[in-house]
Parts: sequence; C-alpha cells; structure tokens
Amino acid sequence: MGAIRVLVERDLRDAVGMGPEEMETIEAVYPLITAGEGSMPPIMRIDVPESNGEIDIKSAYLPGYPGIAVKVSAGFFDNPGKGLPSLGGLMMVFDAATGVPRSALFDNGYLTDLRTGLAGAVAARHLSRAESQTVGILGAGMQARMQLEAVKLVRPITKAIVWARREEQADQFAMEMSDMLEIDVYVARTREEAAAADLLITTTPSTEPLVTADMMHPGLHITAVGSDAETKQEIDVKAVGAADLFVCDSVAQSSRLGELRASLGEGFPRERAVELGAVITGAATGRIDDDQITICDLTGTGAQDTAIASLAVERCTVSDAGILIET
Amino acid sequence: MGAIRVLVERDLRDAVGMGPEEMETIEAVYPLITAGEGSMPPIMRIDVPESNGEIDIKSAYLPGYPGIAVKVSAGFFDNPGKGLPSLGGLMMVFDAATGVPRSALFDNGYLTDLRTGLAGAVAARHLSRAESQTVGILGAGMQARMQLEAVKLVRPITKAIVWARREEQADQFAMEMSDMLEIDVYVARTREEAAAADLLITTTPSTEPLVTADMMHPGLHITAVGSDAETKQEIDVKAVGAADLFVCDSVAQSSRLGELRASLGEGFPRERAVELGAVITGAATGRIDDDQITICDLTGTGAQDTAIASLAVERCTVSDAGILIET
Repeated sequence: MGAIRVLVERDLRDAVGMGPEEMETIEAVYPLITAGEGSMPPIMRIDVPESNGEIDIKSAYLPGYPGIAVKVSAGFFDNPGKGLPSLGGLMMVFDAATGVPRSALFDNGYLTDLRTGLAGAVAARHLSRAESQTVGILGAGMQARMQLEAVKLVRPITKAIVWARREEQADQFAMEMSDMLEIDVYVARTREEAAAADLLITTTPSTEPLVTADMMHPGLHITAVGSDAETKQEIDVKAVGAADLFVCDSVAQSSRLGELRASLGEGFPRERAVELGAVITGAATGRIDDDQITICDLTGTGAQDTAIASLAVERCTVSDAGILIET
Repeated sequence: MGAIRVLVERDLRDAVGMGPEEMETIEAVYPLITAGEGSMPPIMRIDVPESNGEIDIKSAYLPGYPGIAVKVSAGFFDNPGKGLPSLGGLMMVFDAATGVPRSALFDNGYLTDLRTGLAGAVAARHLSRAESQTVGILGAGMQARMQLEAVKLVRPITKAIVWARREEQADQFAMEMSDMLEIDVYVARTREEAAAADLLITTTPSTEPLVTADMMHPGLHITAVGSDAETKQEIDVKAVGAADLFVCDSVAQSSRLGELRASLGEGFPRERAVELGAVITGAATGRIDDDQITICDLTGTGAQDTAIASLAVERCTVSDAGILIET
C-alpha cells in the first residue's frame, strides 16, 4: 500500500512557522469555505465524561489540494493535575486522489496553534486599521502568544497590552514576548486597558462575555478566537450588535460554536454576519473607514487544517523529514 | 508528551485474528451500544467527488475501555484502475483517561475486516439455528471470506455455497476457501441456491435488493453486512417484513444506512427492530424455535472499532510490537 511519512512536532516546527507563505496558505482557504467548495462536515465530538474530556474531529476536502487532513484534538481538563497538558492531538493526511494515507503528523497541537495564529493575522490584515500599532490581548496562554506573533506579520505593532485572569501568567507572557518579539509588552490591570488598543484579540475559554459594548472605541478591530463550543462566549451580545461589521470564518460554525450563537439567540440578524472569505474576495464590503468598529470571530475550520497540513507534508516530503513506514 | 506505538498490518495480523477471545471482545460491545453507554457520534463523512471517493470517520468512547479508537476509512472507487484497492484506512487509539495519542494502526483496513467478520459470528451465535451446517454467501470479496471463517467459530459448518455477480470471482473464492477451511465450498448459479442453506450471509455493496421474501425458508437466518450507506440495500422490504425477527447492531444507524432505511420508508414499524445487544443480554427475545426466520443487519459501529483496537494495542504493548516514536 506504500509508505506513510511519520512526522513529529520538531519536524513540523522545522517545516512550517509564522511566515508570509504560511499566512497566504491560510488566507486562500476562506474564499473556498464561503463558496461552499469542497466538503467540510460538522465537527465530530466524542464526550468522555469520566475523564472530564472530549475528542473533536475536524476535516475538509478542498478541490485542488493534494491532501485531505483529518485532525483529532483532545481536551482533557483534569490533565494538569497529572502533569500533562490539557490539549493535545494529531493529524493525518490522506491523498485526495486515492484516499491512501500519506502522513501521520504527531504535532502535539502545534499545527492548530499555528494556523489559528495565522488566521488572526488574516483577519487583522483585512479588517483592522492599516496603521494599527497597539494590540490588546485577553488571555496569556499559547494562543495569545501565537496571535501576537502573527499580527506582527501584517501590522506595524510596537506595543502590546495583555490581560489575564491570573496576573502572574500575564507577567510571564509580557516578559517572554517582549524578549522574543522586541516590542513593549505591558500587563493590563483591567480588560478596558487592553481594549483601548487599536486592535483587541481575545483568546480565552471564557463562558461569559469579557468584552462589552462600552469598552469599544471608534476604529477598534476585535478578533475573537476563544469560543469554539456551545458553552463559550467572549464578546457581549450588545457589543456584537454595536459593531459596524461582524465577520466570521464560517457562519454555520459561528452560529453553533462561536460568538454568533448567543447573538442570534437575542435577535441579531443572521444576514448581518459576513464571512471572511467574502471580505477577502471583495464580494462583501470590509472596513470602509478608520472610525468603524469591526469584529471577526474565528471558530477554526477543518479547511485550515487541510491547508496547513498539506503545506507541511509537501515541505517535509521535499526535505525527506521524519520516518517513512512501509505499510 | 510520551511515545506513540506505530503498528502496521503485519503487527496487527500477528496480534489479533479470528479467535474466540476476539469474538467475545466484539460481542461485549453490543449491550453497551444498546444501553447507550459511552459516546458514539454519527459517522462523519467527507465526500471527494472529483476522485469518486469518500472518507468516513467512526469513533466511540466506551466506559471501562482503556482506549478510544478513531477510524478513518477511505473508499475511492476509481482506484482499481490505478492498481490500488478501493478501500483503505487506518485507526488511531487515544488514552481514554488523558486523551494522549497512544497508537497509530496502519492496518490497511484489516481490523475492520476482522471485526466485521466477528460481528457476523456473534449474530449467528445468537440467532441462527444451533445445528446450522450449511451457509450461503452472497458476494465473494474479502468480507465474504471473513464471514465464512468467522461463522465456523460458532456453528458446525460443513458446506458453503457462494454466489457472486462475477462468477469467476465465486470460483476463485470456492477454491481458496475450501483449501483454507477444509470444508466443501460450491458456487451457486442463482441466489436462490445460496438462500437454501441454513444460514445466509450477504456481503455485497448492492444498491438494489438481492434477497426477496420468496427465497426465504423456515428456519433461515440471514446476516446482512453489505449496506453501510444511504444508497445501499441487500434485503427486500417485503423480506424484512416477512421475517419473524429483525435485529440490527444499532437501530439509529440501520435506519440511516442499513436495511431498516428502506423498510421504515415503506411502513415497517420501528418498534419491531430489536438491537443485537438486547438479544445478547436477554432483554429482548431472540430466536424461539427452529422454524423462525431471523434477519440481522450489521452496519458496523465505532464501538466495535474501539473494542478490537483496544485489544490489539494491549497485545502489541505486551509483545512490544511495532515502532515506538517519541513525540
């Protein structure tokens, strides 16, 4: 049946990172999602209540891509007590022409972290003010790091202000990220301080709104990447309603798992939600002036997984990275 | 993050096969399915129309099992023209307590073939007449082979009669299987000849009924394993209606993908469908005399995948089979 390339996290970190080609790879999938091209079934979820865990499976076929990624993400929330991270997972890539397994990517979630960060850069590129120099961040975990690094690809960021429920985590973040990115990173005492920036990125697993309408100022762009479940919400319904433009990666998914869920429930008209793919192609109008308030909700799609995994496997094949296993 | 055990088909063939312990492993999951224990989401399907293909994903969490299997099956029906098999796939096993990936099973579909065969043995054990000596088989592919081998575990089979659309395939089957199992295997010219046996097993991808009510005789048991899609059907609706007992692995799944689909559409009462798990525990009445006609429809479940994969990984861990990859 051929050979399967087995890749581990270090192979994948060597192959793909926070770069412009990777960002364009992610950007290119949004118009396909919006056009309904390919096949992207709803997320499959297996609940494991005895272990306070869940397994989510995402996948998508995109015409013209050589591979189809199947991603399995595990979230087991008692793991920290066992000395293990809460989140993990892996991807597999199948040949889109024959269905033959081509590669197993034991990435410990790296590709998801990366493509989610890059998606934030795509949203900022199309929706934030071009001269945005300051970025506020809610949350100080892995995805907060990814988002800050990514937004620097597209905006002349000189300063970041981070807020986290646990202040010592924010302190750690500020220290690390100012070193790594050579920009000023401050700790915010309140969410309002973070929201005063040109651009606000929310990266928390919050189940109640952290951003309210009164925190928003003219010209602000908010990218919300935290909500990916029926129970989560970072942006208040009134804030969504008060924004001039509400964009999301997938209306279907945001309605179920993202910021649209609560808003639709309180009467926000579905037709006001615009997909990022439509903004990218120009089919929908994006930001039209520097005073508008824009929001982009990213729930994360299997299409992005297929895109980043295809790029990673292509590069690892060229460099002959990893181990080939005859099956 | 630990190590992942990578297993290929030969490791898995060495570890698990057509034996009584494997059969009991499969048997044990049906009562769990029927009791609704654990979590078994509907099959996820990714259509790949440009390649005449589809990818199906099955999974299940079963309380008390150490692993959770995620199975990806690929069916790409233009593959034979490229010198490749139509069907393929792989499984992954995650730790049920932590979600950490434990094993990747590059089995080329072997575990599915095996667990489907064993499911046929379980159905025959609980529903066919104990003294069944002859078995008719429709279809002469891999699953026909598995079913014949499996049914010998539970019934004193001395003779098999195989029918296939392509007679040369049936000839090949008869030659191989009579050698392998040391029983008489004949080729049937008509489906009626095969249905005259004590036990009939249908293993085809047919989209129109192959077994009609007039082919059924008192005492016959039919196991239907072919239908696993909205388009497939092997047993005529009138035959389903005429049987004394209709059993299936999962009413939910058989209603969508199996023999129940067409029957419910034509008025067969859903409450007449009994799950195999209920027959196994005695919660539902199985065969009560030697004149009854019984049908068991097996669509295949993620619970079976989790059960057989858990057993395989357990045995391969003990024997230290395969390759350990540090992630």
